[in-house]
Amino acid sequence: MPQGKPAVVPTDGLTTRQRRNRPLVVLHTGDMKGKSTAAFGLALRGWNQGWSIGVFQFVKSAKWKVGEESAFRALGRLHEQTGEGGPVEWHKMGEGWSWTRKQGSEEDHAAAALEGWREISRRLADQRHGLYVLDEFTYPMHWGWVDVDEVVSTLRARAGNQHVVITGRYAPAALVEAADLVVEMTKVKHPMDDGQKGQRGIEW
Amino acid sequence: MPQGKPAVVPTDGLTTRQRRNRPLVVLHTGDMKGKSTAAFGLALRGWNQGWSIGVFQFVKSAKWKVGEESAFRALGRLHEQTGEGGPVEWHKMGEGWSWTRKQGSEEDHAAAALEGWREISRRLADQRHGLYVLDEFTYPMHWGWVDVDEVVSTLRARAGNQHVVITGRYAPAALVEAADLVVEMTKVKHPMDDGQKGQRGIEW
Repeated sequence: MPQGKPAVVPTDGLTTRQRRNRPLVVLHTGDMKGKSTAAFGLALRGWNQGWSIGVFQFVKSAKWKVGEESAFRALGRLHEQTGEGGPVEWHKMGEGWSWTRKQGSEEDHAAAALEGWREISRRLADQRHGLYVLDEFTYPMHWGWVDVDEVVSTLRARAGNQHVVITGRYAPAALVEAADLVVEMTKVKHPMDDGQKGQRGIEW
Repeated sequence: MPQGKPAVVPTDGLTTRQRRNRPLVVLHTGDMKGKSTAAFGLALRGWNQGWSIGVFQFVKSAKWKVGEESAFRALGRLHEQTGEGGPVEWHKMGEGWSWTRKQGSEEDHAAAALEGWREISRRLADQRHGLYVLDEFTYPMHWGWVDVDEVVSTLRARAGNQHVVITGRYAPAALVEAADLVVEMTKVKHPMDDGQKGQRGIEW
């Protein structure tokens, strides 16, 4: 938990308030668990502020985030019914992006990933969300499906007060450079080292 | 995200199913953000499984987790109203543990922390929760307020299917040794390095 004191006095010409509210690009990377869970934990804070939360799950691994998805969809319905918190949208590449017509028929993962990124670009231009969770979005960049320089320039140029959280291993150097906050999740110990497999409620 | 293959074939005499469902002690430590957010992200998964979630916030810093608290209380109410997910209890040392009578009058933090731990011990004995989040519980151990050996022996002796997630810096070595899964959150980059202070929706 960071303490209140900045390490240096900035020379960027911004007031403390302007600087405090500068929207962030947050990157959760490293080999260990906790990258996505921490992103969704952060999204709980944004939801509570009434921000529009947009989740975009890259990579086909739908079963791994069912718990978060159910909970956030429940929070989204609660917002619709009571006005509490903010609205929630949840889009999955693995089941066809929900704004496309080609549900469930996408064989070309690279094209599907790029399509997801294009949609996110449009939403950033339209200032659609207060917080974007781009879950496992490092992989399409790592694999060359989405151009990291385009991502960086789009993120740098985004207007308004839009926070973006990106998770996944193998974060490209240009993305680390562009991010405001980068956390690496490192393994100290994992039960799979002792032969335990993943379990419900913990891994998904 | 861990892959499905355990690193070694275990010789503990358990079946795969028994080993898979072995309840875990999870520890999120290190200097960087993400320890608590990842714990609450994990708790979303448990909530979705219908587990009883018990959150215990050690250390007086109530404002830092308001987002998670609001969201989880909303999920708890949703469970009461619709049966979706699991029940949620949220207890704060900073505002007097909710099961005590001495609301808001505790000057002795060490005694309050120990009181919290005693309550958790009782709940573990009663198998009250499926998932316990002991937020910032490393500090009372680090400061000597709660005896780490007692914590470890209580955790080791707990019955049933109770998962325990502990967060905070300065995790005692005996706790690291006892935990099944230990993640260290490491700083790569933080906006406070550039003089940015914490902001609503991101830090709390």
